[in-house]
Amino acid sequence: MEALKELIKKEGKYLGNGILKVDSVINHQVDAAVMLEAGAEFARRFAPLSPTRILTAEVSGIIPALTTAYAFRVPLVFARKHKPITMKDPTFLEVAPSHTKGGQVSLMVSSEFMKAEDRVLIIDDFLASGQTLAALARLVTNAGATLLGIGTLVEKTFEGGRELLSDLDIPIESLVIIDALQDDGTIVFAE
Amino acid sequence: MEALKELIKKEGKYLGNGILKVDSVINHQVDAAVMLEAGAEFARRFAPLSPTRILTAEVSGIIPALTTAYAFRVPLVFARKHKPITMKDPTFLEVAPSHTKGGQVSLMVSSEFMKAEDRVLIIDDFLASGQTLAALARLVTNAGATLLGIGTLVEKTFEGGRELLSDLDIPIESLVIIDALQDDGTIVFAE
Repeated sequence: MEALKELIKKEGKYLGNGILKVDSVINHQVDAAVMLEAGAEFARRFAPLSPTRILTAEVSGIIPALTTAYAFRVPLVFARKHKPITMKDPTFLEVAPSHTKGGQVSLMVSSEFMKAEDRVLIIDDFLASGQTLAALARLVTNAGATLLGIGTLVEKTFEGGRELLSDLDIPIESLVIIDALQDDGTIVFAE
Repeated sequence: MEALKELIKKEGKYLGNGILKVDSVINHQVDAAVMLEAGAEFARRFAPLSPTRILTAEVSGIIPALTTAYAFRVPLVFARKHKPITMKDPTFLEVAPSHTKGGQVSLMVSSEFMKAEDRVLIIDDFLASGQTLAALARLVTNAGATLLGIGTLVEKTFEGGRELLSDLDIPIESLVIIDALQDDGTIVFAE
């Protein structure tokens, strides 16, 4: 997606140790119009799959997942990291290692919002190690629902996420693909 | 806003102790189309103020703030509760007592995304005690920016938030106003 790629080209900063700073685009400040466009693009790519629900993990995944849910006119569900006091029903729980914080994060979805008859599309901001996405995929499977595909705004191909997720045997679509982050600060985009 | 009110009427559950469960509408599952409509409604109400930035706090505020930012065609900034490793610049920090978790939560905004020349509209999901909104307002003031107004999806008038925020002397708009939560489970909406 050209608009998102141009934004990352202009605003993204490589901080070293594989960490790409896109705070001004995705993680802290957000260009809402570009995110609506991203949602429409996911809807175009995954249209034949007819999802009934879009699933993501809080926090940064919420925005592209919302705009995708809007484009498909289906509900968004975001997995919670902490159990809110309002979550009373039986809950599906998975854990994933945290890429940026160390330790593990919990991902919880109430059984109210993930049914066996659901056809689920997972949307997130990054495809890096793929660990969070794999945990979301397990949540879908544990709920007995059908996992249709995974879409992410930005894929870092050199962190092995796509390989980790290949066993799922579902389409994985990324709107911007980064092949390398170089020590001189260059972000190498896939063509 | 009638569509949101009808959703809360249909889906909201009063759990006692002042806690309204709207997990299926705002906090866990989200109706994206209603949230786009909410953003357009905030833009209509606050149009004369011409904000340059929409500010909210993660997590649940992000969705109505995104759709408001989209309607105004200005950037969204969401205050982070935990400092991400990508946040390197000087940072404005405020703390607010947590309504639902106890203890305090930190709210951080990088100085990159809150400038003295900014005209800021704060959008959040709930106006209850007003403590989080007051902390966001202090962030804006500390940045030297101009605070224009506050918009929330749902106001619980009996928790005193509007009174707490009255010193700010800015317009406060809520799309759905709840005057009471009764022990028999009735949600009393303002007319």
